[in-house]
Amino acid sequence: MSKALPKKSENYSEWYNELVKRADLAENSAVRGCMVIKPYGYSIWEKMQRALDDMFKETGHQNAYFPLFIPKSYLSKEASHVEGFAKECAVVTHYRLKNDPNGGGVIVDPEAKLEEELIVRPTSETVIWSTYKNWIQSYRDLPLLINQWANVVRWEMRTRLFLRTAEFLWQEGHTAHATKEEAVAETEQMLEIYATFAEEFMAVPVIRGRKTPNERFAGAEDTYCIEAMMQDGKALQAGTSHFLGQNFAKAFDVKFLNKENKQDFVWGTSWGVSTRLMGALVMAHSDDEGLVLPPKLAPIQVVIVPIFKGDEQLAQISEKVNPIVKELKKRGISVKFDNSDKQSPGFKFAEYELKGVPVRLAIGARDLANGTIEVARRDTKQKATYQIDSIVESIVNLLDEIQENIYNKALQFRTDNTAKIDNWDDFVKILDEKPGFISAHWDGTSETEEKIKELTKATIRCIPLDAVDEEGVCIYSGKPSSRRVIFARAY
Amino acid sequence: MSKALPKKSENYSEWYNELVKRADLAENSAVRGCMVIKPYGYSIWEKMQRALDDMFKETGHQNAYFPLFIPKSYLSKEASHVEGFAKECAVVTHYRLKNDPNGGGVIVDPEAKLEEELIVRPTSETVIWSTYKNWIQSYRDLPLLINQWANVVRWEMRTRLFLRTAEFLWQEGHTAHATKEEAVAETEQMLEIYATFAEEFMAVPVIRGRKTPNERFAGAEDTYCIEAMMQDGKALQAGTSHFLGQNFAKAFDVKFLNKENKQDFVWGTSWGVSTRLMGALVMAHSDDEGLVLPPKLAPIQVVIVPIFKGDEQLAQISEKVNPIVKELKKRGISVKFDNSDKQSPGFKFAEYELKGVPVRLAIGARDLANGTIEVARRDTKQKATYQIDSIVESIVNLLDEIQENIYNKALQFRTDNTAKIDNWDDFVKILDEKPGFISAHWDGTSETEEKIKELTKATIRCIPLDAVDEEGVCIYSGKPSSRRVIFARAY
Ligand SMILES: [Zn+2]
Ligand SMILES: [Zn+2]
Repeated sequence: MSKALPKKSENYSEWYNELVKRADLAENSAVRGCMVIKPYGYSIWEKMQRALDDMFKETGHQNAYFPLFIPKSYLSKEASHVEGFAKECAVVTHYRLKNDPNGGGVIVDPEAKLEEELIVRPTSETVIWSTYKNWIQSYRDLPLLINQWANVVRWEMRTRLFLRTAEFLWQEGHTAHATKEEAVAETEQMLEIYATFAEEFMAVPVIRGRKTPNERFAGAEDTYCIEAMMQDGKALQAGTSHFLGQNFAKAFDVKFLNKENKQDFVWGTSWGVSTRLMGALVMAHSDDEGLVLPPKLAPIQVVIVPIFKGDEQLAQISEKVNPIVKELKKRGISVKFDNSDKQSPGFKFAEYELKGVPVRLAIGARDLANGTIEVARRDTKQKATYQIDSIVESIVNLLDEIQENIYNKALQFRTDNTAKIDNWDDFVKILDEKPGFISAHWDGTSETEEKIKELTKATIRCIPLDAVDEEGVCIYSGKPSSRRVIFARAY
Repeated sequence: MSKALPKKSENYSEWYNELVKRADLAENSAVRGCMVIKPYGYSIWEKMQRALDDMFKETGHQNAYFPLFIPKSYLSKEASHVEGFAKECAVVTHYRLKNDPNGGGVIVDPEAKLEEELIVRPTSETVIWSTYKNWIQSYRDLPLLINQWANVVRWEMRTRLFLRTAEFLWQEGHTAHATKEEAVAETEQMLEIYATFAEEFMAVPVIRGRKTPNERFAGAEDTYCIEAMMQDGKALQAGTSHFLGQNFAKAFDVKFLNKENKQDFVWGTSWGVSTRLMGALVMAHSDDEGLVLPPKLAPIQVVIVPIFKGDEQLAQISEKVNPIVKELKKRGISVKFDNSDKQSPGFKFAEYELKGVPVRLAIGARDLANGTIEVARRDTKQKATYQIDSIVESIVNLLDEIQENIYNKALQFRTDNTAKIDNWDDFVKILDEKPGFISAHWDGTSETEEKIKELTKATIRCIPLDAVDEEGVCIYSGKPSSRRVIFARAY
């Protein structure tokens, strides 16, 4: 780490961009808007995938894989889907290159033009529902609970590592049900799984809510979401779960014979989270020294740095450290003993801080004599001296404590930056002076929602699921409202 | 399972196609050449991925992710790479759709034409080496041992589920090294990992070998491969590992400062296996009743089918079965207790045979009285009565035995269908009458290789790594040869 990161408090945006690159999470590629996810970043994504995949499977879902390409005509089948979606996407028009007859590499072979253009999937509802048509005949074929891990492409003009990229990785669940009630229950179940994942693994508290009709997924009858607060007070939508009603079933003619022996359209849901979560993870916890990773998602949970002069001292330290490494691994803790003599301990300390390793142990000659070891927490930056004999137990407990502390800190931050606001002047003022979540009344109309967005760049993040009935008047229009919604500027 | 599969002995090709579909492994999608991998098929692929990924990580590799799109100009940078590869691929030319002003859905927006076309990756050497240029400055940055799990697209005119599809899933390793020796060692190590995976997990014996210059990967200096024999005697290339020399480093200007403080080009390797392995797995072991899966890759390793009349009998059986299920799960064995009363035991037996479940247990009232349980092996179709008290131990052992037996059967088949041939007439005759591997002398020229292919459709699958020096004359030209190579017709 040659020079310091930009300061979070001075330039949040630059701090984020630099941190993502320097911590080896991701970088921009030569293809505009497409990122390279570097090994360290990818190993965090793998941990996210594993945790989510386990939860999907525990709730009866299976993985499958559907085509990357979607025939152009499919996108027109669900009218509101194409309205909201289909415009900015990568279009495949040809299937062959040939050598340039004038020299100079390869050119597209004009004779290899596709009869119908193919769209690189921006999401897979259309191609999946066209497949479900053949898989579903009777209520016995339902529910169909399928998830896909895949790459998708949405041609974004302004991109940002993890947060908004032309190509990104995600999972998309697509389920089919015999009844509306079951589909709604599935939509809610998956939202709760996302919320649990965000809170228990990412240590990011989230608000569970519903989108307004304006902000619904194109083709959905209801969109649920989880909203997280970043350290600049902005909101980040961390996952969505859609109740599709019978819209896609009707668009792709997916009917089933129900228990009453009658044909009916199938009810659907879809739900997804993406590599955007990586951005949320960085933005929610990290600081001016680098990443702060919750232990459950840290590729290296514990690093041990020996402080030594010469091979003999290193050998003595290693003798003490090796059984600790072995025991930690046995407990399922990922640990690295960095015994390289190429970098100084100070350099290593800074490097592992940058990478967000939750616990750092340092051990030198004096520790050996005293039977102690120095323990540094990444989250609080506290250092303490521990007994080496019971260090494994101590670390196991400490990792739990860190996980909890990171969550509590984020929760406290959100509490401190959430305000109940009841008049327009305060609303406008707080957005600039102390950005965060604003709990305010709204008259329920799209017009007001759009007007507020236009005037303040704040959007309705969601109507919280736990919102209580409360008489009030709309912050903007003064019209009556029966409960508060969450406003914020958002990523 | 309503009607029987086509017979393997009568129409191998049709048997394969039908089996893949009926066993719920995969099906064709509406997009020509792109398949849908169904949940049951995908769960086998997930097991393959897990096993391979573990082996990659044990040998120091890390996963990362690189862009789906490759700028067209990149493909021209490595001359022989583009010659061998770049022609049949999906070309993205536009990035936006718009509503058809004449009604009728969406059309490609002619104003959204890309300045430079993008190619959907057929393989990622070019985009990865263009990235490595920024990652590698000195020998301290080497080796770089990276793998990617991804989808790739090669526009095939004639496609076949798993074996040849326009889009397929794979992993591609791309490593960079300071010395030629190290890169060659990596190439060989990865081939050995593939061979170990094929033999120990897929239960498919493979020949480790080198490709002839004609059959090398475009841009490689040496291509190693593993070749498996299918039940129709044809060869299937199950994995390749390429020594790239300094070709891609030179094409993308990837230099490093070596230990002698001099600039040098980096040495590279790449290696991959794909969902083609699914095809190999099916073709190597299955029979007229359906899949035969090796236990290590079977999504369900043991199925338990109760034979009962009425709820009371089922309850009695369940009481006996539940602890067995629990104990098997504790041993890491995936087990399904199919207590549904919607299908008859006979229907279930056929269904699990079709799906290749290695062990089926059946238990009825008389078994309860006798303390026994009926055990049926999928591989040999043998049935036996076991003591229920020791059934868990018996099954653990039986699964190992089945894994081994499936491998040995495939190995015996390969032995029986491999012939040493020393004259042209026999060569031509055996290819039609008893297809398999032919070990024969070849004069080492591309002309002869091509002529043999033209005359017989047999290709040189590889020069086996364990080939012994042996004076002989070329099967076709009569010119001198110093060792035998493997010929076969291939998928
Ligand atoms: Zn929301
Ligand atoms: Zn070969």
